[in-house]
Amino acid sequence: MKAIAKFYHAGCPVCVDAETAVTRYLDATKVDLEVVDLGSAKNRIAEAEAARVRSVPALVIDGHVIHLNFGAALSDLK
Amino acid sequence: MKAIAKFYHAGCPVCVDAETAVTRYLDATKVDLEVVDLGSAKNRIAEAEAARVRSVPALVIDGHVIHLNFGAALSDLK
Repeated sequence: MKAIAKFYHAGCPVCVDAETAVTRYLDATKVDLEVVDLGSAKNRIAEAEAARVRSVPALVIDGHVIHLNFGAALSDLK
Repeated sequence: MKAIAKFYHAGCPVCVDAETAVTRYLDATKVDLEVVDLGSAKNRIAEAEAARVRSVPALVIDGHVIHLNFGAALSDLK
């Protein structure tokens, strides 16, 4: 069964760099990846918060949150 | 040609979590991954600094540094 992964970003330069690495190098045979732009999908900020995302870019995979560098605080996207 | 990736850590709990995700989900057909424990390989801290790693755990891939959450500052490992 594939792992579920969500990559949360907000279109910032730091986000774009991280997204390139994530989409290029995550193993698509093991991971179902969804890319979520919280800058436009503000209705999903609560979902990211519930997964313990504090800043973007962040990857939630197997229920673990991995913040990838720092682009913007989640609170600044509201 | 495969991308060269180096995962720098120091054995901290945050490092172990990140290492699990990196070793499990990076696409081994696209990436040659080396795992470097800076806690024991202190002679490689300078190499990590040169790659602009500021804290561990961090993944250097294609020359880009991605800090994965925050375990310890590089300066605290010296």
